[in-house]
Amino acid sequence: MEEQALKALLKSLTWEEKIGQLVQLSGDFFHANELAVGPQKKLGIDQQTVDLVGSVLNVTGASQTREIQDRYLKKSRHKIPLLFMADIIYGYRTIYPIPLGLGATWNPELIEQAYEKTAEESKAAGAHVTFAPMVDLVRDARWGRTLEATGEDPVLNAAFAKAMVTGLQKDLVNGGGIASCVKHFAAYGAAEGGREYNTVDLSERRLRQDHLPSYKAAVDAGCQLVMTSFNTYDGMPVTGNGFLLKDILRKEWGFDGVIISDYAAIQELIAHGVATNDREATKLAIEATTDIDMKTACYAKELEPLLKAGEISEDLVNQSVYRVLKLKNDLGLFEDPYRGASQEQENAVFLTEEKRKLAKKVSSEAVVLLQNKNKVLPLTANTEKVLLVGPYGDNQDLIGLWAVHGDRNDVVSIKKGVENYLDPENLLYTQGCDMLSDYQFLGEFGATKDQIEQSSLSAQEKATELNKALTLANDADTIIFALGEHTMQSGEAGSRTDIRLPQIQKDFLAELSALNKKTVLIVISGRPLVLTKETEQVDGIIQAWFPGTEGGNAIADIIFGKTNPSGRLSMSFPYTVGQLPLYYSEFKTGRPLTSTTHKGRFVSKYLDSPNEPLFPFGFGLSYSEVVYSGLNLSNEKMTDELTVSVKIKNMSDQSCVETVQLYTQDVTGSVVRPVKELTAFQKVALAAGEEKTVYFQLTRDALKFYTKDMSFAAEPGDFIVFVGANVSETLEQHFELI
Amino acid sequence: MEEQALKALLKSLTWEEKIGQLVQLSGDFFHANELAVGPQKKLGIDQQTVDLVGSVLNVTGASQTREIQDRYLKKSRHKIPLLFMADIIYGYRTIYPIPLGLGATWNPELIEQAYEKTAEESKAAGAHVTFAPMVDLVRDARWGRTLEATGEDPVLNAAFAKAMVTGLQKDLVNGGGIASCVKHFAAYGAAEGGREYNTVDLSERRLRQDHLPSYKAAVDAGCQLVMTSFNTYDGMPVTGNGFLLKDILRKEWGFDGVIISDYAAIQELIAHGVATNDREATKLAIEATTDIDMKTACYAKELEPLLKAGEISEDLVNQSVYRVLKLKNDLGLFEDPYRGASQEQENAVFLTEEKRKLAKKVSSEAVVLLQNKNKVLPLTANTEKVLLVGPYGDNQDLIGLWAVHGDRNDVVSIKKGVENYLDPENLLYTQGCDMLSDYQFLGEFGATKDQIEQSSLSAQEKATELNKALTLANDADTIIFALGEHTMQSGEAGSRTDIRLPQIQKDFLAELSALNKKTVLIVISGRPLVLTKETEQVDGIIQAWFPGTEGGNAIADIIFGKTNPSGRLSMSFPYTVGQLPLYYSEFKTGRPLTSTTHKGRFVSKYLDSPNEPLFPFGFGLSYSEVVYSGLNLSNEKMTDELTVSVKIKNMSDQSCVETVQLYTQDVTGSVVRPVKELTAFQKVALAAGEEKTVYFQLTRDALKFYTKDMSFAAEPGDFIVFVGANVSETLEQHFELI
Repeated sequence: MEEQALKALLKSLTWEEKIGQLVQLSGDFFHANELAVGPQKKLGIDQQTVDLVGSVLNVTGASQTREIQDRYLKKSRHKIPLLFMADIIYGYRTIYPIPLGLGATWNPELIEQAYEKTAEESKAAGAHVTFAPMVDLVRDARWGRTLEATGEDPVLNAAFAKAMVTGLQKDLVNGGGIASCVKHFAAYGAAEGGREYNTVDLSERRLRQDHLPSYKAAVDAGCQLVMTSFNTYDGMPVTGNGFLLKDILRKEWGFDGVIISDYAAIQELIAHGVATNDREATKLAIEATTDIDMKTACYAKELEPLLKAGEISEDLVNQSVYRVLKLKNDLGLFEDPYRGASQEQENAVFLTEEKRKLAKKVSSEAVVLLQNKNKVLPLTANTEKVLLVGPYGDNQDLIGLWAVHGDRNDVVSIKKGVENYLDPENLLYTQGCDMLSDYQFLGEFGATKDQIEQSSLSAQEKATELNKALTLANDADTIIFALGEHTMQSGEAGSRTDIRLPQIQKDFLAELSALNKKTVLIVISGRPLVLTKETEQVDGIIQAWFPGTEGGNAIADIIFGKTNPSGRLSMSFPYTVGQLPLYYSEFKTGRPLTSTTHKGRFVSKYLDSPNEPLFPFGFGLSYSEVVYSGLNLSNEKMTDELTVSVKIKNMSDQSCVETVQLYTQDVTGSVVRPVKELTAFQKVALAAGEEKTVYFQLTRDALKFYTKDMSFAAEPGDFIVFVGANVSETLEQHFELI
Repeated sequence: MEEQALKALLKSLTWEEKIGQLVQLSGDFFHANELAVGPQKKLGIDQQTVDLVGSVLNVTGASQTREIQDRYLKKSRHKIPLLFMADIIYGYRTIYPIPLGLGATWNPELIEQAYEKTAEESKAAGAHVTFAPMVDLVRDARWGRTLEATGEDPVLNAAFAKAMVTGLQKDLVNGGGIASCVKHFAAYGAAEGGREYNTVDLSERRLRQDHLPSYKAAVDAGCQLVMTSFNTYDGMPVTGNGFLLKDILRKEWGFDGVIISDYAAIQELIAHGVATNDREATKLAIEATTDIDMKTACYAKELEPLLKAGEISEDLVNQSVYRVLKLKNDLGLFEDPYRGASQEQENAVFLTEEKRKLAKKVSSEAVVLLQNKNKVLPLTANTEKVLLVGPYGDNQDLIGLWAVHGDRNDVVSIKKGVENYLDPENLLYTQGCDMLSDYQFLGEFGATKDQIEQSSLSAQEKATELNKALTLANDADTIIFALGEHTMQSGEAGSRTDIRLPQIQKDFLAELSALNKKTVLIVISGRPLVLTKETEQVDGIIQAWFPGTEGGNAIADIIFGKTNPSGRLSMSFPYTVGQLPLYYSEFKTGRPLTSTTHKGRFVSKYLDSPNEPLFPFGFGLSYSEVVYSGLNLSNEKMTDELTVSVKIKNMSDQSCVETVQLYTQDVTGSVVRPVKELTAFQKVALAAGEEKTVYFQLTRDALKFYTKDMSFAAEPGDFIVFVGANVSETLEQHFELI
């Protein structure tokens, strides 16, 4: 539809019809009338409101979306199609690793492909918009949604934000892909104490320097929508925060797409205590230019009274409605309200061999080898007896909490993966121990009493399993432990104060690791766990996240050396929970640990713990030793550009992939600067024994930051370039910016 | 000296002499010439600089200060006396409880007396200025200097700030008291991760709302000096932060006293990375109006070159010098450079019976009874056998890390205190267990190898002690455990990630508490410890902080019921370290635990821990039950004032003191407000069985906060008043502010 026609359509709408476009309800309103009565009553809205709603939350599947669209359009006077939006975070049917694992690939190009494939599946299933990517910066592993984040670093997060938006929206103008809604704008990941939905308090400087770059990257990559975050910023929940939404997002960044609230966030302005009722909440939100009200009746019921009372301008509402109509038009919904969704398409594109292959590749690159004492890995197939134990040994729950449309039955378990390598006589397996000692918390997620009971092993089974495991362990040469968090222990509202492995699993590990066999620990988790004790108990540690549909294959390939591991942490792994929040790019203090003027006690540290994490940002082992040398700068001084080069040599007799990381330090600034900042990185393939010189073009732009007066500029002076395999192992050289 | 004369004096000084007034060196520069060569060389200054210095750090004692003053004045051309400044934080010779204990008294009037007495002792010993009070707000118990803070609440901290300054400076204009230097301006207590000297990042809103009130109260109470904090604010270390020092402290608050840097903080601007050398650091600091450079050569060496180069104005330096001269003049030093210090005075005022009595009273009010299962306390003297065990049982180290001038030999140990009540045959004692399993960290504080070795019990002693304790325990009816942190585990640079009792003590407690005797745990600590496990292991818990010189007597009086405990926590005690930072006045979230719209998982909480602390703010038991009833408001609406009344009744047959606490909640604001804020409190004495009505005048002023546009105002609307014995147990009533 041409712009003129769209504007005419807007004009032709009644206020009820206009406002309907700004309301989003969930699927339960759109099924049989009988079913819808419950939720309607709860929200206090009538059928007419439902009939005028502009978008639908979390209904997918070609047949369902088509059916709802058909029914809706049949009733509709204006014939504006419904928009279907859904949580498609790290795969639709083919599930990739959780985003924290995607972050560990350090491979935005690959992740762009994965998101393109995700969009293909999603589009076939009738989804028009996905609430992805989540690009919140996270530095506190207590927070459950760490799972959905790509990590702690603004530069790395921004690279992934761009890749994910680009992948999802590939060829969107020509009907390809689906629209991307970046979330959660802004700084949602800075929840105090890592407690979900908690207050966020930070300076504007930190907001701009650390938190905003990933959202900005998504907006610059053209994401069509932005979701507001639940948290406050400067005392105002973001959904009503004009500074963030109007001043920064719309004016500074020029974003003219749709802003949607997070789930019920407009009405939650009341609980936050910045509105006394739905009407005030509505006014705050619309005035902040929040266009769509997700899942409450605020806009549906209160926008019209506000308009009639002259409390908000018609123009304000018209602009919001126009943005929604424009999105529908840009997606081609007026021409094809299904956007090509069909069951045939689903069958053609869901979980194809090609997609499984891609998922496996992504999983392989996401897995991080954290420890490999005595070169316990890789194992050589069928030369010894391997015991696989643990609640994740033979378990298809490898897709994590927020793979809403994934099917666990598609998942390749670790056991299945390992079976590709081991003859039955060389693979011993038993679960050995329960996942948790208490599953009561599942009730909070809607599990019934029976379901909770069934989750748990009986006392009898526990004893039997332990005995069996001990017996088998005595017979084995190597023990592979597949341990980790329960799916429900991370993800949204999965905040935890103790982020070690569940105690029951720790006890089990202690018992079996005491047998002095060769031991490998596979960790399945939605966050960095505290693995301090485990580093002493086992030889090898493989951090596998929730690795997705092809997880078992990817892990097995690494265990048996078919894949040379290449994953690198995108988030520091703490030594203890008492270190949190924890991140490598900490600001310089006046009394650093390395102080030359202050010795002994009076430096910035803990008495009982290192400052450093257990495993640093950027860390990950491979089966090859790669040696860095000859860090060289093309010039001692830089005006606009500088070439940094370093030699890396693969000392091993197998090929490997090395992630070369370049950090900088601005030695003196008009404000305090971080000790190191990731500035650039390259993933480089090295053949056996190969040496390469890796070049980085370091630009003045990359050295910009928010200076004392909040201008964004690079300040002349001394800089240090660090290049290495992770943030803690680097070569360094000084240069002067002039 | 008249103002005119002082100005003339200023004029008569050379630049070297002026700048000398802005330099502070420690005592080692003022001893025999031989001794001074070392530190001089280290700082790179010459004897002339030392001879011109304006103030001395941490030298006290009448004879020493007099001697240094004499020697200095003899050499001096201008005859401006030296200022002696020292760390006198919670007592000079008579040591009161650590400030966190003082906070628990909820009795600013009493603390004012204590600080007045401290000033008396300090003055006699030749101190002119004390670097106290420390009024930093602290909400993260990992931070070691929690010890020196009065707690987590702005209102309570401000009340103590005022009391302490008033006490120290009592009758200052007439030569009484000593000058108070409030510290550390500003927000030092918000160090990230509770790690000493670490970055502080917060919004200006939080800075003003929570952190500034206590400094402001000290300034309003007339404190003569302000010390800058080590931390950054908005990217700039405070010592060079013009916004905090010039805009807020000097302009907004009208502070025209002396600003002094913290120890070496000017030079630390280099390590912070905001200055490349001493000269730049000096420029930043003087331009921010930091008057005195503590313990570096920056000002001494760099101010004059900066003046000569025209990089700073003469006026700027003259103003600083004048402020220092004025302080000396206000203290009467030109008339009496010793300010009455003499050994006779020391003998007359040090640790008098009256002061011991006061110290005991303060300690008594500081001790908090946290738990009293089965009414195990108070004990009845000589009706049973009592075993006292633990490293603090017979130990005079009860004064904590920062009682620099205190003498442990003055201290009444717990054993000594208990002996007042028990005949020898009823008191069994043995240490039972070591304080720590590893004392290596003492080396960081300068302990020698030998000293470290001597700190520890030998393996033999450990075994003997444990056996002895077990044997005696079997013979005892009640076991009193005196456990806690080592003195060096808290205080400056005493940050810890694990804030439970030392493991060796936990093991000991587990062993003895399993014997099923009546058990009482006395906790000596510089911070809220995690006592979750201990609440299950013992009957009674007495939080005694580092209780000071009269600690043993105060504790014994409580154990045996001579004192009915009345202390109330001024800081939340965490359930687990993973909850930190933790404070009661948290901001409302959109999804509170008590949400009616969101049930189950999706509310703001942890999966594995309560949101609430183990012991809440304001909590403390007594031996009396006090019942609250009849909360009444004089009006449902308030314009300027409202009377709140509540009845409290002592249900017991002994007198008690109840701290009645009034909190408010601003239900809806232009910004998100805390769930509860302490607004007023009263300590009320109740005779046995007595009922009283307690009245509070609630004023509009008390409801002011920083509104959306950062004006300080009370906003009309719904409010809730809560009154009760602690923040979690309250009656409530609504009113409307109009």
